[in-house]
Amino acid sequence: MKTSKKANFIALAACGVIATANIAASQVKSSSNKSVVARHAQMQMIGYHIGVLGAVAKGEMDYDTAMVDAAAKNMAALAAMDRATLWIEGTEQGTVDGSRAKAEIWTDPAGFDASFASLEKASMALVGAADAAAVGAGLRDLGGACKACHEKYRGPEN
Amino acid sequence: MKTSKKANFIALAACGVIATANIAASQVKSSSNKSVVARHAQMQMIGYHIGVLGAVAKGEMDYDTAMVDAAAKNMAALAAMDRATLWIEGTEQGTVDGSRAKAEIWTDPAGFDASFASLEKASMALVGAADAAAVGAGLRDLGGACKACHEKYRGPEN
Repeated sequence: MKTSKKANFIALAACGVIATANIAASQVKSSSNKSVVARHAQMQMIGYHIGVLGAVAKGEMDYDTAMVDAAAKNMAALAAMDRATLWIEGTEQGTVDGSRAKAEIWTDPAGFDASFASLEKASMALVGAADAAAVGAGLRDLGGACKACHEKYRGPEN
Repeated sequence: MKTSKKANFIALAACGVIATANIAASQVKSSSNKSVVARHAQMQMIGYHIGVLGAVAKGEMDYDTAMVDAAAKNMAALAAMDRATLWIEGTEQGTVDGSRAKAEIWTDPAGFDASFASLEKASMALVGAADAAAVGAGLRDLGGACKACHEKYRGPEN
């Protein structure tokens, strides 16, 4: 069945940003802090959905409107998660293990909110993408949102 | 700060179902299949938010309307995720490593949808819970939704 084939797709990198997302998609990094694990799970799910769309854009997975829309809407919902439970003060890099969250997340909450709003907007823009090329174009914008946020709010590898 | 204390709360079990959720909250089990990892991440995030609400119910975390509502809404959004990208046919237990998904998920899609709808409803019912006791009462209903779905659609430990 078509859906079985989809199960094993390999989401190759469409660009550097998406490559980074795919690394996140293949694993969930651990932490002794549960909110950090939950944030990593959120990032994994975002990365996973970028991988689905990346595979469609590259023709490794059949274009399917329902699948593209599902991936885009799921990403938007993940970007729209209320940050109160996830980005808890005192969980920045250097304070709890496994965290790469910069202190700027808490000193510049409006900027951080705006970054997630950009991701949500770029995700919703992919809903209804008419073909693989449109998915690819949408992903480039979305990759820009990922990159901008990571540059401002994510610290170096631990 | 109050939020720093929240970062390190330990979400103790309020009942057997919630205990199960807390196990899920502390780790994300791996798989070679990316959609299975993404589902585990989804379950981790659900379990994490149950843990937040469980800590409030037990008085281990201060009652805070914004935090309770955030946890409830995030859980509802996680329950409402489009299943097309996550529950891909051919990823049941025994077919891909790490999966505990029963074949019934695909042979009884309406029942599976209804189970997630129950979780979404029970999550939204927690929005506006007036105090810790109300959170606890809401969690009991929510635990019932978890348990019913796991009994029907989740296989034994791998």
